[in-house]
Order: sequence, then structure tokens, then C-alpha cells
Amino acid sequence: MSQDNSYIPPRKPVILTGDRPTGPLHLGHLVGSLRNRVLFQDQYKQFVLIADMQALTDNMGNYAKVRENVVEVALDYLAVGIDPAKSTIFIQSKVPELAELTVLYLNLVSVARLERNPTVKEEIRQRGFERDIPAGFLSYPVSQAADITAFKANYVPVGEDQLPMIEQTNEIVRRMNRSLGRDVLVEAEAIVPKVGRLPGIDGQAKMSKSLGNSLPLSASADEISKAVKQMFTDPHHLRVEDPGQVEGNVVFTYLDAFEPDVDLVADLKRRYQQGGLADSVVKRQLEDRLQALLQPIRAKRAEMATDKAAVLEMLRKHSLIAREEAARTLSEVRREIGLDYYFL
Amino acid sequence: MSQDNSYIPPRKPVILTGDRPTGPLHLGHLVGSLRNRVLFQDQYKQFVLIADMQALTDNMGNYAKVRENVVEVALDYLAVGIDPAKSTIFIQSKVPELAELTVLYLNLVSVARLERNPTVKEEIRQRGFERDIPAGFLSYPVSQAADITAFKANYVPVGEDQLPMIEQTNEIVRRMNRSLGRDVLVEAEAIVPKVGRLPGIDGQAKMSKSLGNSLPLSASADEISKAVKQMFTDPHHLRVEDPGQVEGNVVFTYLDAFEPDVDLVADLKRRYQQGGLADSVVKRQLEDRLQALLQPIRAKRAEMATDKAAVLEMLRKHSLIAREEAARTLSEVRREIGLDYYFL
Repeated sequence: MSQDNSYIPPRKPVILTGDRPTGPLHLGHLVGSLRNRVLFQDQYKQFVLIADMQALTDNMGNYAKVRENVVEVALDYLAVGIDPAKSTIFIQSKVPELAELTVLYLNLVSVARLERNPTVKEEIRQRGFERDIPAGFLSYPVSQAADITAFKANYVPVGEDQLPMIEQTNEIVRRMNRSLGRDVLVEAEAIVPKVGRLPGIDGQAKMSKSLGNSLPLSASADEISKAVKQMFTDPHHLRVEDPGQVEGNVVFTYLDAFEPDVDLVADLKRRYQQGGLADSVVKRQLEDRLQALLQPIRAKRAEMATDKAAVLEMLRKHSLIAREEAARTLSEVRREIGLDYYFL
Repeated sequence: MSQDNSYIPPRKPVILTGDRPTGPLHLGHLVGSLRNRVLFQDQYKQFVLIADMQALTDNMGNYAKVRENVVEVALDYLAVGIDPAKSTIFIQSKVPELAELTVLYLNLVSVARLERNPTVKEEIRQRGFERDIPAGFLSYPVSQAADITAFKANYVPVGEDQLPMIEQTNEIVRRMNRSLGRDVLVEAEAIVPKVGRLPGIDGQAKMSKSLGNSLPLSASADEISKAVKQMFTDPHHLRVEDPGQVEGNVVFTYLDAFEPDVDLVADLKRRYQQGGLADSVVKRQLEDRLQALLQPIRAKRAEMATDKAAVLEMLRKHSLIAREEAARTLSEVRREIGLDYYFL
């Protein structure tokens, strides 16, 4: 009989994902990331980061906003089915090892390189920072690299526009490994979701709380109803009998995203394009779908919100798990650098 | 009888000082900082930082150099009389709270502000970084602000050229306190030593190991002798009978710094200026003085170097003390920001 004990069970690949706690999560998050996380947690070892330190990079002083949204975001996660038994949901600031890695990695990236990062450039433009960019904001890709590498994440789900962040992370990984003479850190691969970004209810490309065009996951039945009524359709579709346009028509974009009966959607589209189908009919179909989708999420969320202490206790435990993981990576890096003086 | 128990004994003011462990300390350090620390430790609560993380900002990859110099610098401290019973001598990387504060403070300083810092500008020029400035190097004043504020230092001894660093720290202190709505952090005051900077033995303004013009504290008797022989005097003082110049004459600058018998120095200067006094005579006087000064330092250093484990154990204990202190400040900051979620 073989006495070979060298078998190592295959390790699940690691995935890191998360959100900045700056507002309640909305339908855009559901489509862009949350639904995938519910799937991913079965295939991957999934870490879900509530990035409060990153939120502070452009919210110094807005402390209450960041603080309150940590629990709100966690409630959103639980409500949509991210399962604490399968995913590690943790708070960034509770893992100080991430700050230590950030400070080390800052030495491996030039200021010019950070200023060239297209994602950061665009965000600086959006925020109107110009020459008053906080150093912490310019260097948040370095802090993201710390988040990703601390957990040796193999995969990071990101939007198309976030690909430069993964490239930046992998540059740091390669430089660090080269400087250590050993592959301590792991390069990450981006997972870009097939479903594109959900537009705002007003038809703008991005759904965002600050643009006032979002529908939060916790929306009441009335709010859903109101949002659908306000929804941008085809501005030239003035009379029911006129042919209408489906492209850029938010109601149809949402039906594509949320209505599982694709034949029904195809039929509605055909009839709308021919003329003779009222916006109100299509909107009713969408509203029914959204009400059905959000009702159980809202109910689960409301139930859990009655015991925020339990949510915080989950976050505390999970943050400790995350901390252990990050501490292991940091201590490997420190050992290679030689910062373990006491054991000389 | 009064039952007033509200008397609080006056707290010693706190002073923070330290060095980057990138090479052995030399005579320039002795004059510029070490001698003062030996005095300060009686009047102040003194923290002496071995700034290994800061050393890494321009030494990524040169890990052995930084690592080895941590113990060497500690040996230099002990040899000159910095007393572990009076000063807390600790290693920066062993106080991770400093990295956490750094990451927070980075949000309070703009990139443009860091780029305007005259000290950093000059150091960037010296290192030839130009556009390839590591982000960690550009932001090291922020990391210094973390060091200073973590210990609520009231005083920081710095050279004239380092004054902008203290200004930067106090800007961060004011911004942080304003954003917290409470004066958690303490502004620091610079102590600029009266004695100017000791020139290199070649007459260059700065003594530095990398310029090859320094005399390390651990120099052997032969090395001291050789250094004094090489020392820059008055290049126009070719014959003994010629009048010589005292200004810019390194031998006299050193006599001013190390010869306590000021009348003797005044007399030598007078005779040198008149003509008739050989360089060799003045150099012999200086050599005797330096040999007498460095012999006990070298002996104490050599003795302690036989038990580096004991030095490391001291550093370990002191780093724990420093950590407790820094953790107290960090937790005050975190509490005000509201990062203490678990206690909501």
C-alpha cells in the first residue's frame, strides 16, 4: 500500500471584490457585481471588502457618511444572498496589515506612473480635484494592490474601466517579487462581467446615488413604482401608434437585465418598434419584475436591520479571519525583506 | 484638610528624534544630534526612532543594507550614551500604527503640496530621481508626520534645512484636528541645534558615508589618524611660515566642535593666521582630541557588539513600549473618525 501523504487537496482560487461604503448599494451594483458574487462564492474562496479606508481618500471629514454606510453595505450584501458561511465579508480598516503593505508598495510606484493611470485621471476629473489631488487619492491604486495581494487573490471582478487598476497591481507584484528574489506575491487576473453597466433611470451611462438616478436595493414599493414612471424611454415615441426605439431606452435595457423570459422581452421589443405599444405597458411589465425582484431583498434586509449588532459581530469575526490571511502575506514579505530583526 | 485629588504631576515634554539605518553613524551625527540626545533624555520623554521604513523609500531591494544597519545604529546610540533606561529606542517597522496613520494622513495632503516641499525637492535633486520619484519617497514627510504625532511629540530636533518637514507635520495636525472637531493631535516645535553642520573631512558642506568624507563613530585608531591626515586645511598654506586661513579650514572647524579648551583653540587660530604654525601641529592636537573622544565610544561599542541578541531584545522591548504609545493615539483618532464600528 502506498504511504504517500503528499497529496494536497486542490485549493479553491481566491477572488477579491468589494465596495466603498459611501452610499446604499443599488440596482446597478446588483447587475454589475452582487449577482456574480452570489455565484462566485460557491466556486471561489471569496473575500468581500468594505473599503472604508479607500472611501476616506475623498471623504476626509465626512466621517459619519462612511461610518454609517459600512453597516448599510453589509446589510445589502446579506440581503442579496452573499452568504457569510461562504464569503469573508470584512472591513478594510480592521486589517491594518493592508496599510503596512500600502506603505511598502508606495516605494515601488513612481508619482508619474500614478498620474498616468487612466482610471484615476478620469476620477480626478469627475471630482474636480485638479491640482489639489489628495496624495491618498492619487495613490489609491496602491492601496488596492495591497488589498488584492494581501489575500493572494487570483481573480478580481472589475468593470472594463478598472482594468488599469489590475495592471498597476500586477506591476507592483512583479517589482516586489523581483526585489525579494522570490515569488511571494501572486498576480491577479481581471474578471470583466459580460453584462455591461446598468444606466441610470434617466438614461445617463452610470447609475449613481450622487447623480440622483439610482434605485437602491432597499427601495420601497412606492419608490420602485415612482422610479419606473420617471424612467427614460424614447423621447420621440409621443403617440402609442408611433414606432418606438429600443436602443438607449432604459426600460428595455432594464428588461434585458432583469426579465428572465427572453421571448417575452423580444416580443415586447418587436411590438414597440412596429408601433402600437404604449410605454406604460412596457413599464408595467418592468415594474412587476422589479417589485418581484426587490421585495424579498427588502424584506430580508429589513429583518436583519433589526439586529445591527449581529451584523457587526459577523463583520468583526470575518475581519479577524481576513486579518489572519493578510498577516500571513505581510509576514512573508517582511521575512524576505529582513524586517524580522528579533530573529536574526 | 483638602481632599483634592485632582493634582496631576507635570508631564515631561515629549521629544522625537531618530535616524535612517542606511549606514553607520559618524562624527557629523555626534555633533548634530547624538550629543544633544544624551542631554535631552534627562529633560524630556525621549523617543529615538530607527526609521527602517523610511530608509526603504529609496532603498527598495537594498534590504540587507537597511536590515544590518538597524543593529549598527542601535550600537552607535548605546555607545555614545543614549541610555535605554531614559530613552525609548525603537524600530519604525515594529510600530505598524505608524503605517495606519500615514495612510490616513495621505488624504490630508495634496500632491502639489508635497511637490513644493523644499527639503524633498532638494533630496529628489540629489538622488537624481526627477520624474521617477517613488510615491513613497515623495510622501515621506507624511510618514514623518505620523512618527511625530503618534507620540504627541512637543519637540523635534532638526537641522535648519528640515524645518519645512515640521511645517508639513503641523499642517496635517491642524487639518486632522479640524476634521475631527477636537484637538487629538499635538503640534510640534522644531529645535534647531546652535552648532551648525559638521563638514566632511574633505571640506564639503555635508559629511556623508556615500561621499566618502565621513569618520564613523566606530573608526579604529588608525582610521582616525588617516582621516585627520587627509583632512582639508587651507590649500594656500604651503609653507609653515605663511599666514594660514582658519575659515573653511576643516581642522579648525573640528577643533571648534570637539576641543573643550577654547583658549587653546583661540591661541592655535591666532598663531596659524599669523604664520609659523604647521598644519601637522594643529592636526596632531585634533587627532589627540578625536582619539580621546572616540576611544571609549569604540570600546563600549565593541563590547556591546559581542551580544547583538541583547541589543535586539532591548529594541524589541522598546518597540513594544513605542507601540503602546502610538496605538493610544491611533485609537483616539479612529474613535473620533468612527472606525470603531463594533462598539456602535
